Amino acid sequence: MSHRENLTVYVSSFIEQLYQSGVKRAVISPGSRSTPLAYLLEAHPQIETHVNVDERSAAFYALGMAKASGSPVAIVCTSGTAAANYFPAVVEARYARVPLIVLTADRPHELRDNGAPQAIDQLNLYGKHAKWFYDMPLPESDMNVLQYTGRIAAKAAAKSLAAPMGPVHLNFPFREPLSPDLTMDKREAAFTSVFHAKKQLDEDQISVLAQKVSQTEKGLIIAGPAEDERAVEAILTLSEATGYPVLADPLSGLRTYMNDHHQVIECYDAFLRDDRMKDLLSADLVIRFGGMPVSKALTQFLKRNEGSQWLIDAGAEWRDPSSSATAYIESDEAVFASQLTSVVSGKPDRSWLDQWISINAKAEAEIRHYISDEQDEGAAVGVLLQSLPDGAHLVAGNSMPIRDVDTCWVRGMNQFHLWANRGANGIDGVVSTALGLSSVKEGPVYLLIGDLSMFHDLNGLLVTKQYPNNLQIVIMNNNGGGIFSFLPQAAEPEHFETLFGTPPSLDFGHAAKLYEIDYKHCETKSDFGQSLTDLSPNARILEVMTDRTENTDAHRKLWKKIAGTVSGE
Amino acid sequence: MSHRENLTVYVSSFIEQLYQSGVKRAVISPGSRSTPLAYLLEAHPQIETHVNVDERSAAFYALGMAKASGSPVAIVCTSGTAAANYFPAVVEARYARVPLIVLTADRPHELRDNGAPQAIDQLNLYGKHAKWFYDMPLPESDMNVLQYTGRIAAKAAAKSLAAPMGPVHLNFPFREPLSPDLTMDKREAAFTSVFHAKKQLDEDQISVLAQKVSQTEKGLIIAGPAEDERAVEAILTLSEATGYPVLADPLSGLRTYMNDHHQVIECYDAFLRDDRMKDLLSADLVIRFGGMPVSKALTQFLKRNEGSQWLIDAGAEWRDPSSSATAYIESDEAVFASQLTSVVSGKPDRSWLDQWISINAKAEAEIRHYISDEQDEGAAVGVLLQSLPDGAHLVAGNSMPIRDVDTCWVRGMNQFHLWANRGANGIDGVVSTALGLSSVKEGPVYLLIGDLSMFHDLNGLLVTKQYPNNLQIVIMNNNGGGIFSFLPQAAEPEHFETLFGTPPSLDFGHAAKLYEIDYKHCETKSDFGQSLTDLSPNARILEVMTDRTENTDAHRKLWKKIAGTVSGE
Repeated sequence: MSHRENLTVYVSSFIEQLYQSGVKRAVISPGSRSTPLAYLLEAHPQIETHVNVDERSAAFYALGMAKASGSPVAIVCTSGTAAANYFPAVVEARYARVPLIVLTADRPHELRDNGAPQAIDQLNLYGKHAKWFYDMPLPESDMNVLQYTGRIAAKAAAKSLAAPMGPVHLNFPFREPLSPDLTMDKREAAFTSVFHAKKQLDEDQISVLAQKVSQTEKGLIIAGPAEDERAVEAILTLSEATGYPVLADPLSGLRTYMNDHHQVIECYDAFLRDDRMKDLLSADLVIRFGGMPVSKALTQFLKRNEGSQWLIDAGAEWRDPSSSATAYIESDEAVFASQLTSVVSGKPDRSWLDQWISINAKAEAEIRHYISDEQDEGAAVGVLLQSLPDGAHLVAGNSMPIRDVDTCWVRGMNQFHLWANRGANGIDGVVSTALGLSSVKEGPVYLLIGDLSMFHDLNGLLVTKQYPNNLQIVIMNNNGGGIFSFLPQAAEPEHFETLFGTPPSLDFGHAAKLYEIDYKHCETKSDFGQSLTDLSPNARILEVMTDRTENTDAHRKLWKKIAGTVSGE
Repeated sequence: MSHRENLTVYVSSFIEQLYQSGVKRAVISPGSRSTPLAYLLEAHPQIETHVNVDERSAAFYALGMAKASGSPVAIVCTSGTAAANYFPAVVEARYARVPLIVLTADRPHELRDNGAPQAIDQLNLYGKHAKWFYDMPLPESDMNVLQYTGRIAAKAAAKSLAAPMGPVHLNFPFREPLSPDLTMDKREAAFTSVFHAKKQLDEDQISVLAQKVSQTEKGLIIAGPAEDERAVEAILTLSEATGYPVLADPLSGLRTYMNDHHQVIECYDAFLRDDRMKDLLSADLVIRFGGMPVSKALTQFLKRNEGSQWLIDAGAEWRDPSSSATAYIESDEAVFASQLTSVVSGKPDRSWLDQWISINAKAEAEIRHYISDEQDEGAAVGVLLQSLPDGAHLVAGNSMPIRDVDTCWVRGMNQFHLWANRGANGIDGVVSTALGLSSVKEGPVYLLIGDLSMFHDLNGLLVTKQYPNNLQIVIMNNNGGGIFSFLPQAAEPEHFETLFGTPPSLDFGHAAKLYEIDYKHCETKSDFGQSLTDLSPNARILEVMTDRTENTDAHRKLWKKIAGTVSGE
């Protein structure tokens, strides 16, 4: 076969196996060396491809798609720094456990490590942050090679999905000429299926743990950020069977259902700030699922708590920064919760749960007052949450937005779903993550983001020109890094505004014009509330002007108020 | 001493030694964990600090400063994906040989690899792309520790400057609280000096090589992209002594002086495209300095040439993608050129040099006609070059801009200096590189850039709000990836515009408003020429509208014309 036929058959067979292994979407950044992958992905009749010029944004866009779909998404770029621009999203995918298939084009061996243009060392480019790296062979159409590279495609998808999910990286050397023949019939190698088994404790192990539960009245379940919603129902059922309250992180998926489940506790971040509360509510057994919660108060509560703490994680990564776990349970979370539920016996005593529910209800009431009475950024976030329709998706930026959602998302609101990049908690790539997510999800999708984070990934907006998207972007513009005002550093006026406040003084109306996106400026909370009532069919920016000092003051007032109310002072 | 005193003494001693080792500038991105480094750099009376919010831009901004100053520049960021955003610039610095000192803040050991927030594995984060990585100890003020970490600072600067220059990475674990005491007297450890020796061949080695030169009439010198201007004069002197023409890459530094040096050949890219010319001008000895030239025609000429080829590189990286070198000379370039000059004897025969000069002059004339007569993007670049004042600096973007400068920079223009990111030839980070460079250089600085590359690093513009900068930005807006129109892929209309053309349809006037930068829209070449006559005292954008097809056609016409002229057809 000719070079061109070899290239075409090899790459199209690889892509077909990738598709058969569950990769239904690809995000492509322009480049020459990546031509074979780009053309043949674009030409594939079932794979949905999106072009995204800035590779940093492209990778976060794919991350959003992968989060939303639960399936691996491929990203394709050319050689050189293009691949280095993927790094922030690869790191986020690694820690947030999102399946990404990174496909980088490279020079062939004879153009490596000898100063060829746009050639960098791409082997193991992402180091330990890729779960798997493989340097592909040069294109050949020998059936042995095709079967082998087909297995690599299947293995890449399987590895990206195995617990803990994450990014894998395949590097493709291509020789010129680079154009495949789109008119060729594809050679199809035999396809490979993969069956993933889940980790599961045996009956003896479960009964030892169940015995502890049966002996423990003061038990707690902590549901941290979860990669998927599969465990939500099992955890709710376990809490009903045990009578243990569930402290539900906003990213656990459980708060969506709290209106129907009184045992779900959502205001712990507010009332556990007080050390007296930490002691009063100290538990003899904590059963923790998912990643570390957003709430620092909860982390401190866990560190202070001297009882048993079980950490269930199929990914077996011992995510326990306070080193307080007494047992690491390396099992699938949903399977474990169901197993434990089925063997727990006896009717739970209600007094412990009622105590939590009663304290939580007091905090809830204060938070509702705060949302309606205060005018700061946090209260505006509350107004946003109250306005979200049933089935909506909300992507929250890091720093203040996710914390304000944690505070303000209380019982009584419509059922919405929350997303955030909590692998490495970066303020980067958030716009693209939300856009990728909204390109997959049916329901209305909102993004809540600060001005610095919005600025960081402003380039992400370019795709809205190419692909229809109805993301509603709410920018809380406090002109700088709002979260730093809560730190001890804020007490030192010298250099603070230069190094931490960093006011960019951006009017995002100009950015909206650059990307031809609908835009609305909101000077006040009520102005914002009114703007929220009409949902735009297109991507839209609502910019809300807030004040960092007012925000810090109002938050501290709220926490003080809640501390007083719950302790009866 | 208290935690705070330890922290202050440790970090300020480190920074003082860094300063003593030649680090006069630092670029800081906001974050909490990096507080000790940020505060104490900001408070240092001699170190010039700039804050740059987007770490990707920040690192390229520092890269521009380091290129312009020839001294290492420090970059500081917090933990997590912030550090991953440095990666593209770290890769560019590695291959372009630019000294960067990357200082990342990290969690202490007890918060690593256990799911702590914003904690990622930062050890060896940049893999082989950092010349050196070191994980710093926790802050202590014991004199042994201070002396040791002082040595680390000196060693980091020394390693970044040793040939080949490049980035080094130090990772700092910090425990809370993070604020240093700015009122403390700094503890100063004894400072360390470093003397860098240059690699130099001995007399016997030189005389063997000089003998070959003395026996060779048809010799050529190739001056590729250079990291510094030190070798320029030595190479010019060598060419005079040998009578060998010097093919001067636009980034070699030699073209700046070509008006006074008739042996400098600058139009080779145009006339060596023709294989008949490659054969006619084939040399018996090629002496090559610097990185691989921008010109693909020259690379092909080198590959086809069967004579001896010497590659001089103090960095010893064998930058020879055509594997055509017959001798690798691992010596300092300036030293080698001077040594060889001093021992070369005899008066050079002029006929070989005259042949080159004559052919080159014909191409020069055609290029001048092209600049004045054509209306395409390349001709507009020529107009820009003709307008540059003496002592100006021009930063050229990758893809088309650097190639158009290569074509259009001919004898007779004012003396300007050219810069580009040719380590990995990326279109990313170019705006920030130019801004960093212009913050250091006295003379007027221009940036020539395409619309995709401008878009990619639009965030770089934010610093112009904080620090006065008079960069004159010329955007050649051909609405997409202009260089792809020259590739074979352009012959396939299906998917081409989607995957390669990728028209972003951006009006950069809105970006100028967002960042409060002066802006001028130029519809035609003459419109543009007129706008160039008044230099703005502030940063300014000149957007020139061009057409990709017209551009390809005009370039091809020029090359055909030159091929005909030089061959006498």
